[in-house]
Amino acid sequence: MSEQERPPVTVIGLGAMGSRIAEVLLAAGHPTSVWNRTPGRADPLVAQGAVRASGVAEAVTASPLVLVCVLDYAAAREILEPVAAEFAGRTLVHFTTGTPQQAREMARWAAGHGIGYVDSGMMATPPMIGKDGARFLYSGSQDAFERYRRSLELLGTAEYFGEDAGLASLYDLALLSAMYGMFAGFFHGAALVGSAGVSAADFAEQAAAWVTAMTVGLPYDAEFIDSGDYTTADEQTVAFNKSAFDMIVQASREEGVAVDFVAPLQALLARQVAEGHGAASFARVFEGIRAGR
Amino acid sequence: MSEQERPPVTVIGLGAMGSRIAEVLLAAGHPTSVWNRTPGRADPLVAQGAVRASGVAEAVTASPLVLVCVLDYAAAREILEPVAAEFAGRTLVHFTTGTPQQAREMARWAAGHGIGYVDSGMMATPPMIGKDGARFLYSGSQDAFERYRRSLELLGTAEYFGEDAGLASLYDLALLSAMYGMFAGFFHGAALVGSAGVSAADFAEQAAAWVTAMTVGLPYDAEFIDSGDYTTADEQTVAFNKSAFDMIVQASREEGVAVDFVAPLQALLARQVAEGHGAASFARVFEGIRAGR
Repeated sequence: MSEQERPPVTVIGLGAMGSRIAEVLLAAGHPTSVWNRTPGRADPLVAQGAVRASGVAEAVTASPLVLVCVLDYAAAREILEPVAAEFAGRTLVHFTTGTPQQAREMARWAAGHGIGYVDSGMMATPPMIGKDGARFLYSGSQDAFERYRRSLELLGTAEYFGEDAGLASLYDLALLSAMYGMFAGFFHGAALVGSAGVSAADFAEQAAAWVTAMTVGLPYDAEFIDSGDYTTADEQTVAFNKSAFDMIVQASREEGVAVDFVAPLQALLARQVAEGHGAASFARVFEGIRAGR
Repeated sequence: MSEQERPPVTVIGLGAMGSRIAEVLLAAGHPTSVWNRTPGRADPLVAQGAVRASGVAEAVTASPLVLVCVLDYAAAREILEPVAAEFAGRTLVHFTTGTPQQAREMARWAAGHGIGYVDSGMMATPPMIGKDGARFLYSGSQDAFERYRRSLELLGTAEYFGEDAGLASLYDLALLSAMYGMFAGFFHGAALVGSAGVSAADFAEQAAAWVTAMTVGLPYDAEFIDSGDYTTADEQTVAFNKSAFDMIVQASREEGVAVDFVAPLQALLARQVAEGHGAASFARVFEGIRAGR
């Protein structure tokens, strides 16, 4: 394999994620340099053939492609700021979890130092990296992403969302929002049926099938949201869903299940009805969430 | 077809749901009597061959199987109370949406009058009734359910959950909880990506695939819940998810998205960590929801 296919890479930050990334790149034949604040973390990788960089400057200058996976953006800036000059002309792919604003700020910093910047959101757990089902979201410099796409694809499916460096994090956190909503709803439902002695396992089977079936409603709701026109002729109105939701809250109270997770949606539905949107599509709830009312 | 296969049925309450149920039963060859408080609602069904009952007593005595689909349980009791004596020895399948406690109370009332009682939760919209994908949950008298199962299966998949009449409603509301959680999470995520100009349609496609993939986690969480032992060796801990969730809340604030729907789960995760459950499985959130803390 040529150097173009397997360029030298550096991995900075060797927690569960960085270590697994370095391992996958090493196994695929990338000359791999590694650095971690606590040096011992590099030992297993050095045993697999990685080069231990003696400091951050050496780590950064060892490769045209530098992957960073540290605790947070503050740690990343603290580590990289002193070596900004050495970093110029190279590419930084940033795997540290952060907010879109943090990613955009980092992209501005990188641009100011002539560093190609790609931000990433990981939709996987560290053990999944390099295996089927691992998925990475990327945004920022398209040039840099395309140049190293083949290397990044070793880690998992690589999807590019656009030049706005904040997009990968936005998509990541938005998808996690949908997932956490589903999990919180599942826990609430499990508590409801649990009040009658039904096992969570029985309910999980039902809920997985039902939630999966109901995802067909998402593109339908999206049409209303994108058009901003919530006029509907079908019965899936705000008022209809308010009635159903009121029943969930009432049943929860009757069965002694906490209503913390259902009360906010109930309040929003009630507010929408009070403001005259009862006959609008249920998707209008989106406007309340977006606007905070 | 014999009378046993297609026994006479009565449908009381001819809103969208009751009308569609009567239509499906009529089309399948059931001698069908109908009654509605506002008599005009029966006209289209009479045109299709239904018999218009002149009153509730006549409606109830016309058939061994009486299906009721009215606004709420109070309306059902108001209509049925005066004809309890005539109802004795027959079966009441109750489609009115209510809470498990309301269903149980109705079942006690029915038992006190020698009426076979089956409660139903409809996991479908009225136009879906009688078509692929319509699904009905039943609980209450198993004898009555089995006797009329073939007729009920004309309406959609018929699943029986047990003698506790409240189970169908519990399952119904619990599954709706999971669905609403998913929708609220989707709306929140759509608002997040929308802040960067991403369309809800683009996000819906991503979210549907992601949420569907993540439902594999439900049986896994259910194991922890059913065992009551939340000890885990993997990284999906309360603390890990708290960090991810804190990022969602922080990003939402930065992008001007309301945190109404994410704040309760954030508070619960923080409380679990404060109480020393940071290293427990994320599924421990269930305990907070069940117990209201």
